[in-house]
Amino acid sequence: MAIIVQKFGGTSVGDAERIQRVAKRVAATARKGHRVCVVVSAMGKSTDELIALANQVSSRPHPRELDMLLTAGERISMALLSMAIDELGQEAISFTGSQAGILTDTAHGRARIVEVRGRRVSETLAAGKIAIVAGFQGVSATADVTTLGRGGSDTTAVALAAYLGADSCEIYTDVDGVYTADPRVEPTARKLNELAYEEMLELSSCGAKVLMVRSVEYARNHDVPIHVRSSFADTPGTWVRKESDLMEKAIISGIAHDTSEAKVTISSVPDRPGIAARLFRALADAGVNIDMIVQNIAAGGQTDISFTVPRSDLDRAEELLRPIAEEIDAAGVLTDRNVGKVSLIGAGMRSHPGVAARTFEALAEAGINIEIISTSSIRISCVVKADDVERAVQVIHEAFRLSDEVVYEEESPSAAAAE
Amino acid sequence: MAIIVQKFGGTSVGDAERIQRVAKRVAATARKGHRVCVVVSAMGKSTDELIALANQVSSRPHPRELDMLLTAGERISMALLSMAIDELGQEAISFTGSQAGILTDTAHGRARIVEVRGRRVSETLAAGKIAIVAGFQGVSATADVTTLGRGGSDTTAVALAAYLGADSCEIYTDVDGVYTADPRVEPTARKLNELAYEEMLELSSCGAKVLMVRSVEYARNHDVPIHVRSSFADTPGTWVRKESDLMEKAIISGIAHDTSEAKVTISSVPDRPGIAARLFRALADAGVNIDMIVQNIAAGGQTDISFTVPRSDLDRAEELLRPIAEEIDAAGVLTDRNVGKVSLIGAGMRSHPGVAARTFEALAEAGINIEIISTSSIRISCVVKADDVERAVQVIHEAFRLSDEVVYEEESPSAAAAE
Repeated sequence: MAIIVQKFGGTSVGDAERIQRVAKRVAATARKGHRVCVVVSAMGKSTDELIALANQVSSRPHPRELDMLLTAGERISMALLSMAIDELGQEAISFTGSQAGILTDTAHGRARIVEVRGRRVSETLAAGKIAIVAGFQGVSATADVTTLGRGGSDTTAVALAAYLGADSCEIYTDVDGVYTADPRVEPTARKLNELAYEEMLELSSCGAKVLMVRSVEYARNHDVPIHVRSSFADTPGTWVRKESDLMEKAIISGIAHDTSEAKVTISSVPDRPGIAARLFRALADAGVNIDMIVQNIAAGGQTDISFTVPRSDLDRAEELLRPIAEEIDAAGVLTDRNVGKVSLIGAGMRSHPGVAARTFEALAEAGINIEIISTSSIRISCVVKADDVERAVQVIHEAFRLSDEVVYEEESPSAAAAE
Repeated sequence: MAIIVQKFGGTSVGDAERIQRVAKRVAATARKGHRVCVVVSAMGKSTDELIALANQVSSRPHPRELDMLLTAGERISMALLSMAIDELGQEAISFTGSQAGILTDTAHGRARIVEVRGRRVSETLAAGKIAIVAGFQGVSATADVTTLGRGGSDTTAVALAAYLGADSCEIYTDVDGVYTADPRVEPTARKLNELAYEEMLELSSCGAKVLMVRSVEYARNHDVPIHVRSSFADTPGTWVRKESDLMEKAIISGIAHDTSEAKVTISSVPDRPGIAARLFRALADAGVNIDMIVQNIAAGGQTDISFTVPRSDLDRAEELLRPIAEEIDAAGVLTDRNVGKVSLIGAGMRSHPGVAARTFEALAEAGINIEIISTSSIRISCVVKADDVERAVQVIHEAFRLSDEVVYEEESPSAAAAE
């Protein structure tokens, strides 16, 4: 007997028929003798519909009330799923985030889980019943209802899996796992059997939408094995878990791409201490998320600073930066919406030199110009023209032969063997 | 400064525009310096839509889960109303039944309020903010979400008014008060300025839909003045409060009618002790609501027992009664769906003889046959053919000159004066 947390997203519970299909899957897991806790999102587009209603009555809906409103969504899906499971002859009880003990801070709309007091959930499982928990929502210390922000249901599922000491946290989605690249961009992309938390974190941060960063962080911190799999098929998906010696030793796990950002360059910035701090403090205070900051070595006492921001924040960022640029005697603020980011991620990169070189070669051979480069120990990201993004994914995928089932080895295998 | 509870039903908050209209009214009341607690129902037909969804996934939705599902309805309307008020520059905070401390028993779908622990609501009002509370819902001692059944939002409003010691509980509805008869049936029906709890109780029990029985009972028990008024106009409506010497002394307050019931007659029942108990125990155990039981004096050791039941329960009642009738040697079970009930209600009836006689005369003159009569100290009810119901309302309304503004006096004023 295992304890299993299963999370179903909005598409999986989009209508009565799909809810019945999910019910069958949950009931089947329970009939195998497992203890099952299910986490659900709101049905299909219902969250969007509620937001539209809020915008009809208010120009700037109060965050507390917006959370109160949106949490109606999971309430509906969880009660319906519970009834549908009941109909199949299994006992199921639904719990709101509050009832399930998902305690959060008070940051409405983007609350963080601070503790799980899931006594009612664990008692339900211990009694041989199925617990259905509303994803995305919690309750603050002031007894106000909160939401966890985008992808919050994944975090709820992982947090409950950690609390329950679950054997696995199954994230059901409309794809059947994590791929070496987005299969819509690279048709030969291969489903990964497993990858390490750190790799998944980088993939998620770099635009892979299958799991949200925060849920992977939580899983890593609490060592919860995540199993990403399809709601529509019964095949195994991708395991995300602690890096271990037993893991496949692929150098590159996958390629993520992201076209939601824009590039900002502040040119000819005087190379004085405190200048960068000045710029980025202003942006941080305005709540603009910065990614990929690059500053070149100063030449002639001046340097260019480039970074990427979410495209939706670009206008605000520019507005903030223009007066500061003037103040600090920079030459100007250049912006470019027409960019995209391609990232290679792989834990094996740490012990294999030459990955960066091969990447740049592949892009150069394809005539793709790299505008910004940034790297971590397990990631290489390149900003290229938006129109080049898909081809960049394809040529890198090909260069590292990611569609091959075999574990990829560096050209000089001795390099790896020597470690 | 007064404390005022305002309750708005589903029609009043049916869409974004109506919610904004309600917000204006609430904000206006608050701007007059009053402390306002608002109770809302779910938007328009949303409860029906949720029930339809439940029926799609389950043949018999679990009552606990159905309550969980339905309570999403008020959650949506209360959050939207709160935002809309916020938009007008007033601070409003919404509370679920549970957050507002509406503690109930565990009877899902028809829970009764056992206590109000409304600290958060009273603190909100004390802080000069508007509290928006979800009607119809509460929380049980087992921390499960419950609903109060049909008309439950009125009861929530009255219970909060009692808890807060409110000066009045305003029930906003699509009519502008309580009338001497249903104006759709009797166009000359007159709006009442006030009536006593007991009269309203009888009116509600006899088919007047403007207030549900339970909310009036709660108001009587806690002496909460109710003001029934229109959501669409600003005119005063009808006050329902404790009977006092200052009240208008109308003999008849109004006429209610009800065509939702059916008549059952068990004929030639042996006149032995315990027979009636046997019959009605069986119905009670099956949850069939009985109204208007009439048993005539036995003739030849036999009697007929007639009563009314909700039409929706008729088949079940008949099925239960047939074998019992046989067992007790009754002649048979006769049923009639084609009946209706007309009731006159008036506290003044107690001190004015002749009301019954005049009622029967009016019906006789109109050629309307009375099938069952039952009375209380302030009510006379007659079961007639369904087709005669509307005319019965009209002729009785006319007989007692209920459309006249003047206080009606008996033909012999000395009879009243002599008391």
